[in-house]
Amino acid sequence: MAKELQKLQIIPLGGLGEIGKNMTVIRYGNEIILIDAGLMFPDEDMPGIDLVIPDISYLVENKDIIKAIVLTHGHEDHIGALPYILRQISAPIYGTRLTLGILEGRLKENNVDASNLHPVNPGDIINAGCFSVGFIHVNHSIPDATGLSIRTPLGMIVHTGDFKFDYTPIDGKMTDFRAFSELGNRGVLVMMADSTNAEREGHTPSEKTVGIAFDKTFRNARDRIIIATFSSNVHRIQQVMDNAVKYHRHVAILGRSMINVVTISLKLGYLNAPEGLIIDIDEINNFPSEQIVIITTGSQGEPMSALTRMAMSDHRKVGIVPGDTIVLSATPIPGNEKLVARTIDNLLKLGANVIYGRDQGIHVSGHASREELKLMHNLVRPKFFIPVHGEYRHLVKHAQLAEEIGMDPDHIFIAENGNILEFTRDKGAIVGKVQSGKVLIDGLGVGDVGNIVLRDRRQLSQDGIIIVVMTMDKEKSCIVSGPDIVSRGFVYVRESEELMNNSKERVAASIKKCLENKVTEWSALKANVRETLGRYLYEQTRRRPMILPIIMEV
Amino acid sequence: MAKELQKLQIIPLGGLGEIGKNMTVIRYGNEIILIDAGLMFPDEDMPGIDLVIPDISYLVENKDIIKAIVLTHGHEDHIGALPYILRQISAPIYGTRLTLGILEGRLKENNVDASNLHPVNPGDIINAGCFSVGFIHVNHSIPDATGLSIRTPLGMIVHTGDFKFDYTPIDGKMTDFRAFSELGNRGVLVMMADSTNAEREGHTPSEKTVGIAFDKTFRNARDRIIIATFSSNVHRIQQVMDNAVKYHRHVAILGRSMINVVTISLKLGYLNAPEGLIIDIDEINNFPSEQIVIITTGSQGEPMSALTRMAMSDHRKVGIVPGDTIVLSATPIPGNEKLVARTIDNLLKLGANVIYGRDQGIHVSGHASREELKLMHNLVRPKFFIPVHGEYRHLVKHAQLAEEIGMDPDHIFIAENGNILEFTRDKGAIVGKVQSGKVLIDGLGVGDVGNIVLRDRRQLSQDGIIIVVMTMDKEKSCIVSGPDIVSRGFVYVRESEELMNNSKERVAASIKKCLENKVTEWSALKANVRETLGRYLYEQTRRRPMILPIIMEV
Repeated sequence: MAKELQKLQIIPLGGLGEIGKNMTVIRYGNEIILIDAGLMFPDEDMPGIDLVIPDISYLVENKDIIKAIVLTHGHEDHIGALPYILRQISAPIYGTRLTLGILEGRLKENNVDASNLHPVNPGDIINAGCFSVGFIHVNHSIPDATGLSIRTPLGMIVHTGDFKFDYTPIDGKMTDFRAFSELGNRGVLVMMADSTNAEREGHTPSEKTVGIAFDKTFRNARDRIIIATFSSNVHRIQQVMDNAVKYHRHVAILGRSMINVVTISLKLGYLNAPEGLIIDIDEINNFPSEQIVIITTGSQGEPMSALTRMAMSDHRKVGIVPGDTIVLSATPIPGNEKLVARTIDNLLKLGANVIYGRDQGIHVSGHASREELKLMHNLVRPKFFIPVHGEYRHLVKHAQLAEEIGMDPDHIFIAENGNILEFTRDKGAIVGKVQSGKVLIDGLGVGDVGNIVLRDRRQLSQDGIIIVVMTMDKEKSCIVSGPDIVSRGFVYVRESEELMNNSKERVAASIKKCLENKVTEWSALKANVRETLGRYLYEQTRRRPMILPIIMEV
Repeated sequence: MAKELQKLQIIPLGGLGEIGKNMTVIRYGNEIILIDAGLMFPDEDMPGIDLVIPDISYLVENKDIIKAIVLTHGHEDHIGALPYILRQISAPIYGTRLTLGILEGRLKENNVDASNLHPVNPGDIINAGCFSVGFIHVNHSIPDATGLSIRTPLGMIVHTGDFKFDYTPIDGKMTDFRAFSELGNRGVLVMMADSTNAEREGHTPSEKTVGIAFDKTFRNARDRIIIATFSSNVHRIQQVMDNAVKYHRHVAILGRSMINVVTISLKLGYLNAPEGLIIDIDEINNFPSEQIVIITTGSQGEPMSALTRMAMSDHRKVGIVPGDTIVLSATPIPGNEKLVARTIDNLLKLGANVIYGRDQGIHVSGHASREELKLMHNLVRPKFFIPVHGEYRHLVKHAQLAEEIGMDPDHIFIAENGNILEFTRDKGAIVGKVQSGKVLIDGLGVGDVGNIVLRDRRQLSQDGIIIVVMTMDKEKSCIVSGPDIVSRGFVYVRESEELMNNSKERVAASIKKCLENKVTEWSALKANVRETLGRYLYEQTRRRPMILPIIMEV
């Protein structure tokens, strides 16, 4: 294929129409680089599922031409699929030090080889096939986050990563305006930009405002302070530590992921804690309560997390007592509202002072609001724009924003996972689709739970199951034993003895009739049981349990 | 019992520590009145449950002394339990006309006698035993809502009902300040007040502000307008109709509950629609799209509602087309956020313009915010205060508010459902507890689904079920047929043939060993199957399906 005929393709495999499992393929000719490889947490219509990762069939088919995997930052929705997909594909992995530090831990936990990780610094440019990828520092709710400039034979692609513009960042490092601006000056073919907060007017507040709210909390609290936040929000943790120093408190760290991230961040220098500040959780009772602050996981009300256990009076090491001040430094992720509310209620019942809610200044988002998005668009001024990292309505709002500031609507692509977006130097279009979707992880199983299993689980959860067992002599065409009926999740059998006895009689009569009419095919008999019993139970209870006829042969 | 020794008891049976199933007993000596009888929608940890109502064991025990049931307003969380509990208790039911109009429909749907309903007007006082109950007009998100003054031999109780202070109400009728103020002047022993918005600073905006936002929508929309809201928000519906008149559109009503409430409200005069304004949904295609507005249910993304079906392109009568303007005039109730988001996304994908979200002015709450609560406390100035109608944190915030404005904290009771709050003329205390709790309704079953059934449903939903069947000859102590293994909701059997075959072999071997060791008790054999198979499957899959051994005898 002559080079000038080759096209540049962008193929999102995850992250469009959803917040989670971000993953994007950049392809030119027979060379691919992959941006991010994240996971998503399951919806409530996926009972029993632990995690969701993107379907990577397309990558597996093209595994020999993957030149690099580049990571924008260390959040689970950007790196969390790697422990699973690195069993099927491989390539050098590039990311900043904290990103790779967190990833390394995940890979080792899952017994996956972590030798192909290549740390970069913001400002670095790496080469992978025909691509050169530059890493651009951005502000986000985790340090060491980056946007990407991807130089391709047909032009420059800019991917913002997850970002905001924080004019007073905790580590003093602002989103690298100049880099984005210079790229804009030189000409950008396509921009992909974070749409998470495209619904939100104005400007996301600086992370520093949270420190001010913490200061007030520390000033007022007389006894222990317990602060729950996301473990990856290292700047938030730094601000807790800074206040602890100021107000002469020691810091104990609680929760497995919190301990992991704090350990890595201290080691790599992303967290600064003076000697003696951090104490072991077992030491907290050696100090008066006014000298203690505990940083913990559980800000989302996760059932097994440290804070939730404390709220349930079920934590081995920390019991909540009246006088404790507890700060929920996070906003509930959609779907977690009720879990968080329950945790707050439980903490209040134990007599704690709980600081929570949007108007307390104790949390800010890590994503750009509309005015920041406008700034990014004006810095980069791309020819084509693909809103990414958002549910469908966020992508729509972001597209509308781009139009409002003057972009040609024909140059904006609201795409779906799996779409092939193809670009030349001056044209772009969605030209096709590759396989994409969700791979469900349940225990050790990756992808073995599909729609039928999920449908069964949902049905089982609604009205339970009725099992009808009988033993038949097929030659003599008669029931040898049974029918017996066993139910689970339907009704208390003791309270419904009559219903169960009537059910048995009806099934027996119905089978007998079948046999008299020479209907002896087991599939027909089973269908008959399901129909007879299903109708009877619905009449009696208005419920539709799963009915499972089992016929044994002797 | 001498009269002076009798005490006044307030016993909340629902609505404390939860938003829903409001129900409060007022007892003096051997006379009871009941305030409200509401239902609640099930939590996500109650799979398959349709509705939740309060446990009324206490009322059933005392059914002969119930003098009246008084209703504050017609919302489901205040009247929805009546179709169920009126099978067990009876008493004259008092409420305003719209409240009873809605209730009458519910009772008839459920084949419950509706002859004991006694309509009152705000301002009326009814007598019931030793009590006199006055109905006081309040603003809320349904017309004809009331607070209550309950004169008892020991003093006055004021129950605010669900309320807000709307200075520009749609029907011109403000919350009756004067009545509350006069009660305050004469002296109030106990106040129970709505805590729903006790977390919210300031003042809840007037319902009229929504009409202004609607006006803007009508002015801008070129094609059809579809507005989804709560069917009981009659004032909201009136404002849609008023704008329809102004902008020369016809109104079609969609959704069963919407049609019911609009019909009742028109009949009783709570809605005013000029002749010819309302058209049948089948007529909408007889008019140009710019002359149509559809009012519909589904603002909470309820799976079977009209709007959700439209969003899924699954509605028989209305298909969404580009150009449609759809207004979600509601805020998602906690727990419904994801359903609502999915509906918005689906509508956007069909090309509609969707107006949603907190900053659009298209919805206001029906509950008082903190400044309004302070006003109510200052009007009524009760001796004792019980925050009601709220989750635990709302009750705490409301109690703190009462303290902030000067109330003695010892006179504030944060109570739980079932608590007996006992009052004399100058003392109050929680003195005991009666049976209370949740009764689950699933299909036709009221209370037949309890914790064991729910636990089974939850387990079934997580990892499914494995049924192990075998037929045994007990005399010969041998397996005649099986073991066979059937699974549902666990894994695709086809993909896991090996796992299933190995499972069978292990079970067979284990049973054989039992029998060799003369272990023939079926309970022991079943326990053995559960243990052997459970351990094996957990090792192989890290899942814990329910294992149900069934042994048939021949």
